[in-house]
Amino acid sequence: MIHHRTPEFAHIHAEVLEHLKPLYGTSQTVLPVYATGRGGMEAGITNLLSPGDEIVACCNGRFGEMWAQLAESYGLGLHRVATDWMRSAGPAEVEDAITRHPKVRAVAVTHSDTATGVLNDVRAIAAVARKHGKLCLVDAISSLGGTPFAMDEWEVDCVVTGSQKCLMSSPGLAFVALSERAWKAMETAKLPKNYWNLMDFKASIAKGDLGAHRTSPVHLFLQVTEALAMIEEEGLQNVWRRHEAIAELTRRRAQALGVPLQCPDLTRLSPTVTALALPAGVSPKDVRDGLKKRGIMTAGGLGQLEAHGIRIGHMGDIRLPDVDRTMNALAEVLDELRVPASR
Amino acid sequence: MIHHRTPEFAHIHAEVLEHLKPLYGTSQTVLPVYATGRGGMEAGITNLLSPGDEIVACCNGRFGEMWAQLAESYGLGLHRVATDWMRSAGPAEVEDAITRHPKVRAVAVTHSDTATGVLNDVRAIAAVARKHGKLCLVDAISSLGGTPFAMDEWEVDCVVTGSQKCLMSSPGLAFVALSERAWKAMETAKLPKNYWNLMDFKASIAKGDLGAHRTSPVHLFLQVTEALAMIEEEGLQNVWRRHEAIAELTRRRAQALGVPLQCPDLTRLSPTVTALALPAGVSPKDVRDGLKKRGIMTAGGLGQLEAHGIRIGHMGDIRLPDVDRTMNALAEVLDELRVPASR
Repeated sequence: MIHHRTPEFAHIHAEVLEHLKPLYGTSQTVLPVYATGRGGMEAGITNLLSPGDEIVACCNGRFGEMWAQLAESYGLGLHRVATDWMRSAGPAEVEDAITRHPKVRAVAVTHSDTATGVLNDVRAIAAVARKHGKLCLVDAISSLGGTPFAMDEWEVDCVVTGSQKCLMSSPGLAFVALSERAWKAMETAKLPKNYWNLMDFKASIAKGDLGAHRTSPVHLFLQVTEALAMIEEEGLQNVWRRHEAIAELTRRRAQALGVPLQCPDLTRLSPTVTALALPAGVSPKDVRDGLKKRGIMTAGGLGQLEAHGIRIGHMGDIRLPDVDRTMNALAEVLDELRVPASR
Repeated sequence: MIHHRTPEFAHIHAEVLEHLKPLYGTSQTVLPVYATGRGGMEAGITNLLSPGDEIVACCNGRFGEMWAQLAESYGLGLHRVATDWMRSAGPAEVEDAITRHPKVRAVAVTHSDTATGVLNDVRAIAAVARKHGKLCLVDAISSLGGTPFAMDEWEVDCVVTGSQKCLMSSPGLAFVALSERAWKAMETAKLPKNYWNLMDFKASIAKGDLGAHRTSPVHLFLQVTEALAMIEEEGLQNVWRRHEAIAELTRRRAQALGVPLQCPDLTRLSPTVTALALPAGVSPKDVRDGLKKRGIMTAGGLGQLEAHGIRIGHMGDIRLPDVDRTMNALAEVLDELRVPASR
């Protein structure tokens, strides 16, 4: 154990935040939030907005809906767009909502929503927000590190990620990067907060002792340190390419098995997770149990996609042979489960 | 790694919460808060109170002051009592504040404040709160597991602890236990919250799947599991007695060295930490560096006690020989530092 108020830990803490910047595509300071990803999202909402503000939330998935729920919890005016989980969120509908509601102050969107397997076009949505002078908040929890993100270039204002997805660590630690516009907005944002208060960090940043600022989850920082070293060793571009390749293989193998995507009309798919729809009459629980017996952990469908859904996560330290093994096992399990029915 | 949405982890999660009950002295459900202790305190405030409510905060230490700051962050009416760090918080001043301010809805107090080494009389303060129908919130972060706590018997309503003190684990996980009065208050409490919303857990408690409710910091639960097993193996009463013994030895040895307590007039002292005042002219940094060279980590004075303070933590897996070693080293270091001055 390293104590969190030591020069040793301050160094580790600073290094983690520094080495996250390329993943974010930012030269801004990255801040830690000592909570899971949802806490990072709540920090974004409470630090940037004030009572009476309105927000446009892209709700095409469980985690898009989480932005909406956070806004509602704080009594913000809320405009849900892209509520169809089967479709990608489009900049036109965001722009339409902004235009119709002048009190809108921010647009919130999920980059990769693991509920559906969508990869929303953050660049296009941020461009619309920027054009109208609105802030753009992005949940990049399941995408950052697994797919290109260019926060500065795309002019995104608040980007949240978590330790447990492409950062390959235990859950419990989130990170938030803020644009200069966001720092400016924080000066006047009036939603109540204490634990989430990111302005608290400002003095510590200047002193270079962010690690001493709060009681830090030391072991999670150690895990993320190792994860970032692994990413740098492989090369970030290579990590991104690998994720694209394993996602493509997953989809190709699923198609060959006759198992369609749950949301086949999405315009862009997440390279970190694939949501599949099992054939009618095949229980997701049985399939997942069969895979588990073979040492493979999968997730069920989320929310409205629960009845037929099975989700294959392929983020972090996953390689092509892992996908092969998974899809071979899925073929076996489906075969087994179909046999009794055909007898 | 165990995934947080598995029966295996649900079992671990449930066991941790169950085995915390004796430490709390409660038969109530203990809930997790996926944050550091301060997050648990904020969950207490936001779940029990509404805009317009007032609170009495016992501020005799850094962490008592944290209750006050949390209340201020949420715009609650705040009445600071026991603002003298040199004294224990007394029930009379709490009762006086309650009587003078009819809109007071809750009293908040720190059990063991590590800034001063006080052990506030929670039983007496809770009794006053109860007598007047007010809720009593207790920060037991640095005391629970190291000293007796009797939440049900003392009629305390909200008790917060954290993973990194007497629970001997990494920081990042808090726990909150709530009385039936607190559960009732939660139904009407209107401060905004989302991540801190403990009512969310109610349905999950009924279903017995608290572990699946949120993304849990899995490794912290595993650490606390081991810590609770260690406590049970030694016997909780024995753990409490051991903490009392090591605290007494620390104080006796300090006295023999001519190093007084920082707050000698406290009526009850924490068995988990001792705050000492170094002689004038002896720099706390030099002393701590000297101890560190000998492999012993201590803390500096906090807040107004920074100039002369050194704090010796003796909580968790600390034994009498550790105290001896620490105090022998302190004797050596003080000797070294005094030599040049006397030449």
